[in-house]
Amino acid sequence: MAHPTPALQTAIKPTTLIEATRLSSVLGIDLILASETFQHTGSFKFRAAYNVASNVPNASIIAASSGNFGQAMAYACRLLGKTSTIVMPSTSARVKVDAVREFGGIVDLIDVGKISRADRVKQLAAENPEAYVASAYDDPLVIAGNASLGLELSALDRPIDCIIAAVGGGGLTSGLVQAFAESGRKVEIYGAEPALANDASRSFRAGHIVRNESEPRTIADGARTVSLGEHNWPLIQTGLTDIIEVPEEKIKEAVRLLFSLANLKSEPTGALSVGALLTQPERFHGRSVCCVISGGNVDPEVYRGILAE
Amino acid sequence: MAHPTPALQTAIKPTTLIEATRLSSVLGIDLILASETFQHTGSFKFRAAYNVASNVPNASIIAASSGNFGQAMAYACRLLGKTSTIVMPSTSARVKVDAVREFGGIVDLIDVGKISRADRVKQLAAENPEAYVASAYDDPLVIAGNASLGLELSALDRPIDCIIAAVGGGGLTSGLVQAFAESGRKVEIYGAEPALANDASRSFRAGHIVRNESEPRTIADGARTVSLGEHNWPLIQTGLTDIIEVPEEKIKEAVRLLFSLANLKSEPTGALSVGALLTQPERFHGRSVCCVISGGNVDPEVYRGILAE
Repeated sequence: MAHPTPALQTAIKPTTLIEATRLSSVLGIDLILASETFQHTGSFKFRAAYNVASNVPNASIIAASSGNFGQAMAYACRLLGKTSTIVMPSTSARVKVDAVREFGGIVDLIDVGKISRADRVKQLAAENPEAYVASAYDDPLVIAGNASLGLELSALDRPIDCIIAAVGGGGLTSGLVQAFAESGRKVEIYGAEPALANDASRSFRAGHIVRNESEPRTIADGARTVSLGEHNWPLIQTGLTDIIEVPEEKIKEAVRLLFSLANLKSEPTGALSVGALLTQPERFHGRSVCCVISGGNVDPEVYRGILAE
Repeated sequence: MAHPTPALQTAIKPTTLIEATRLSSVLGIDLILASETFQHTGSFKFRAAYNVASNVPNASIIAASSGNFGQAMAYACRLLGKTSTIVMPSTSARVKVDAVREFGGIVDLIDVGKISRADRVKQLAAENPEAYVASAYDDPLVIAGNASLGLELSALDRPIDCIIAAVGGGGLTSGLVQAFAESGRKVEIYGAEPALANDASRSFRAGHIVRNESEPRTIADGARTVSLGEHNWPLIQTGLTDIIEVPEEKIKEAVRLLFSLANLKSEPTGALSVGALLTQPERFHGRSVCCVISGGNVDPEVYRGILAE
């Protein structure tokens, strides 16, 4: 197992712990939020990106990401004096393209009607054989990077019965599982997945990786992955207590509750963990729960739309 | 001078420090945010309210507040086993009335066309002579409560050239001045006031307290006070470097920048400090600045409106 290095612990910001008194009271749960919305680049992905970029010898890194991993990798590479090329669909929101550039990344815009992201990454890798091709989740260095969050939570001096975190490709939950296994502290760890993108939940029940046929159209854009990663799967299969499928309405309700009762801006994917509480409230009633808010990057128009409902 | 007590230090949550990398970069300032949006009841007012409620012998407290001080006092009294009566206009937003009740306060709704808040407080005080009538800003216990934030900032192990914080009645800035005077650490402390409600700025220039003729109609509802408090004035007059008048547009732009570049939900009054940076950018360029984000409680409709502009 790869462990988070001291260099990683220095580079990342510790997670922001928020005792959400009003939200706890409304839900009947002793709730603490571990918010990664104030992490570098606004999501937990920086933990993984920095761990990858600082541990591979390559001076340049290629990644496909229209979301948080692209920004995180761009900024990690800038901090480390490396170059990053981020493959993004030409239809990506302008603010996301601008953010990658602002963090120092080279944006490679593609027409996904003409070439898939995976094929474009292969092209770029063939043109730049010295570059490292980084996965946003399916990599032991990603898991070890995200484990740094688990180690922080395992060291908390408060009761925690359960931890809930979003599942997309499985990088975050597998990192949490690895960290708690290493720490020896016993907690239940739950995945929270959009019901519209329930490949991880189906995999968990089937006992093997099940893939979505296409990219799911959930509002939780960080969980639009077609399948769990091969490296993530064994940790998820053996380490999670369950994966909870969260309907779209509960994701949006969670965003609104975080806004109104915790003063926290969350992106839809970041609110999945609280959405899981809303979906199965009886399961967590009266328990001590830590919800990971995985990221905060959301377009103002999308956010306004959610608040308006 | 009244000092923050150990009991207060235990009751409050430490401020949330956010290194706002993107915002720093855009503004050309080494910026750190001290966010009170995750304080109990969502604003710095809890520091003052708890310090008042825990230091007066009275078992019941009366306060007039349609905003953050009412919620803060209600919750402080609940924690201390005291009762609170909060006078609010019957036109107050339902969410604010509900919040005070949720925190355990007795809401006394008045028709401000028939009786002023001050007169209703006098009536209640006459009916309940054993109760303590609490001011939201003009009280040494309020100043000492807010000084607890200043002591946290004075202990920070990073360079700080300037601190900027919102000015309404002056409770927050006078607390900061008092704390830094006690700590001996030298910083410049600036007030940030809505240009539409510039009584503090005019007072600072005139050398005596100048009052607004009526309650100003700024979007920063926490700064709609008609004048500085008598107890706050000497600290403000002698301790502030300047008071910056912030136009309404800059307040709203600051709310949007905090949303987009720092993932932080702020109420308009909370964004005044960043609005001051936008109003006088050259004054702070290249310096180390700590902006206090005084609170996060804002109605979703107001917030959506600001994001839409």
